[in-house]
Amino acid sequence: MLSAIREKSPLIHCITNTVTQNMVANVLLSVGGSPAMVDLEVEARQFAGVVDALLVNLGTPIGEQVGASLAAAEVAHGLGTPWVLDPVAVGFLAVRTALAQQLLAFRPSVIRGNASEILALARFASSGRGVDSSDAASDALNAGRQLALDHGSVVAISGPIDLITDGQRTFEVHNGHAFLTQVTGGGCALGGVLAAGSSVSQDLALDVTRLCAGYALAAERAARVARGPSSFQVSFIDELFSLSDADIDAEGKINVL
Amino acid sequence: MLSAIREKSPLIHCITNTVTQNMVANVLLSVGGSPAMVDLEVEARQFAGVVDALLVNLGTPIGEQVGASLAAAEVAHGLGTPWVLDPVAVGFLAVRTALAQQLLAFRPSVIRGNASEILALARFASSGRGVDSSDAASDALNAGRQLALDHGSVVAISGPIDLITDGQRTFEVHNGHAFLTQVTGGGCALGGVLAAGSSVSQDLALDVTRLCAGYALAAERAARVARGPSSFQVSFIDELFSLSDADIDAEGKINVL
Amino acid sequence: MLSAIREKSPLIHCITNTVTQNMVANVLLSVGGSPAMVDLEVEARQFAGVVDALLVNLGTPIGEQVGASLAAAEVAHGLGTPWVLDPVAVGFLAVRTALAQQLLAFRPSVIRGNASEILALARFASSGRGVDSSDAASDALNAGRQLALDHGSVVAISGPIDLITDGQRTFEVHNGHAFLTQVTGGGCALGGVLAAGSSVSQDLALDVTRLCAGYALAAERAARVARGPSSFQVSFIDELFSLSDADIDAEGKINVL
Repeated sequence: MLSAIREKSPLIHCITNTVTQNMVANVLLSVGGSPAMVDLEVEARQFAGVVDALLVNLGTPIGEQVGASLAAAEVAHGLGTPWVLDPVAVGFLAVRTALAQQLLAFRPSVIRGNASEILALARFASSGRGVDSSDAASDALNAGRQLALDHGSVVAISGPIDLITDGQRTFEVHNGHAFLTQVTGGGCALGGVLAAGSSVSQDLALDVTRLCAGYALAAERAARVARGPSSFQVSFIDELFSLSDADIDAEGKINVL
Repeated sequence: MLSAIREKSPLIHCITNTVTQNMVANVLLSVGGSPAMVDLEVEARQFAGVVDALLVNLGTPIGEQVGASLAAAEVAHGLGTPWVLDPVAVGFLAVRTALAQQLLAFRPSVIRGNASEILALARFASSGRGVDSSDAASDALNAGRQLALDHGSVVAISGPIDLITDGQRTFEVHNGHAFLTQVTGGGCALGGVLAAGSSVSQDLALDVTRLCAGYALAAERAARVARGPSSFQVSFIDELFSLSDADIDAEGKINVL
Repeated sequence: MLSAIREKSPLIHCITNTVTQNMVANVLLSVGGSPAMVDLEVEARQFAGVVDALLVNLGTPIGEQVGASLAAAEVAHGLGTPWVLDPVAVGFLAVRTALAQQLLAFRPSVIRGNASEILALARFASSGRGVDSSDAASDALNAGRQLALDHGSVVAISGPIDLITDGQRTFEVHNGHAFLTQVTGGGCALGGVLAAGSSVSQDLALDVTRLCAGYALAAERAARVARGPSSFQVSFIDELFSLSDADIDAEGKINVL
């Protein structure tokens, strides 16, 4: 996967929140992607037609991002371009929740969120208030399976143990480190990596799982030398830059459920 | 204070400028807060009703941030939720200056700015052009005291010596390092920390003072190992992550005026 | 140049993309500039009248940035305030391409872009899809010379070898490191540095060349100690902070064509 991304250098159209755009871009660059943030509706419609994959993250759906998201997802769906939906904090907040429901019609290739977000998206009750999850990832697995089956998506549920499902097969990833939750954009940037991966994948559920494992493995390695969350962030991106598929083979802790 | 923040993990609604959102979020995470940037008016009105504190920073009041700021401050005021106003570059620039005057009606718990901004907010003449202060912090003390008395706020004036006043008591903080002014968002992120602190405080003027001292102390520690402003920034966030109330007791340089 | 920037501490009005605002601000601070991002049209018109230089970067021309860019460039042009245009990804994307053409009427002091962008701006055919260049820098030299002559600008074309021209004289810079292309905002932040330089310059083409060389030299130095792109970024800003004019004299690799 990683070698395929680095060889292709896929152009990734990112419509993502202003808080972590910089982190998303730098993480994508570190794994060999070519990110471009284009979030005017007119330009997003153009750009989605020529890119290798699309990321739509609903963290701050300001200004024209709502129209741009719908336009770009529609184009991606029409062309068969893979795209990732990251439904940040959907459930309680009205604008993004309505937008997420509309976006599902364009059948995202991957849906990545925490347990609360996946539950909310599947119209289950959720106790989430904001961007942090207050539901155990495993509680959301049934919701994720249903979402996957309904929309033809791979659903990746982030948590201490990540869960990835296409509705039929389900994988667990046991790698990771808590520092990844103490840096803003850890989840958002994973969404970018999964977009890059979706542009070169032959077996999307398995490849998403391997990328989640690699991402979490880079976090483990970075945590070993970090003195706090900011030196962790620096090391984490450096580790992603050096990470290989062989590393994931050797140290990825993946279970098939 | 710091232990109380880490125990509560307060949810902080941040409406803040796009330049330093990332820094604000990472600093808040490092002290144990849970930041969420929500700046659509409809969502901001919802979100302000469920959070532990609110930060309104006027650095880039683009798009819906103006309406979102007013809606969120109104909700916070109505519910008694503590909130912090950071009046970045008010005085000369028209939109934010008018907005700041409107926001004062919602009686911010804390107002944090440099001397120029505090002077401008108090309708004194100010020579400030942009985001850096061109008035000595001490010159703004009278303005700060008046603001504090008029709006029931604690006013924190950042400078080489920080001044904190509730209109009756005044404190000085002598900690700090110039590197903190050579990283964008040093002041903005302090606003976030003060919002977190306001959600757990029993004596707001004193607790704001202690947090200003702790923040500046982390800067002193980071400066000892930094090779320039960027390695300073990394170490600074790491130091905030490790900082304890006992550190502030031992090394905080606080004077009562 | 660098000593003049540090002595003056020029106030730089930045209207720039949300992805790399933070990087632009921190790099400008590291070389002694005083950045302020002001991108509401009303405020931009005010602010452009009092600053030392202006940067207009078209990376994410959202919301009011279009109107703000035109207003600020018009004011700068009227007052003779130097200003830099960074035409990110113009050519294919409609909004920014139209905006760039309008902005040229205000005769930017410096135009900084990659080969594709310079070609597009000069209405040559370009194969660029996004923010990365797909034309060799040297192919764009004729386009850059024409742009420079038509608009009275210095044109800086970034690439493995940077090319700087005022239409009559042309310089090459052979310093640099590939890591600078693996960190988002490497080009955007150079635009900020050139804006700072333009506020103190007596010979703009030569001074832009020297700043490009210094910028690339800092990258070389940072790459020597970096373990990946993120530790590179930290060291790069630290190196810019320490860089002197004497360093550029000693290690700058500048050819006159």
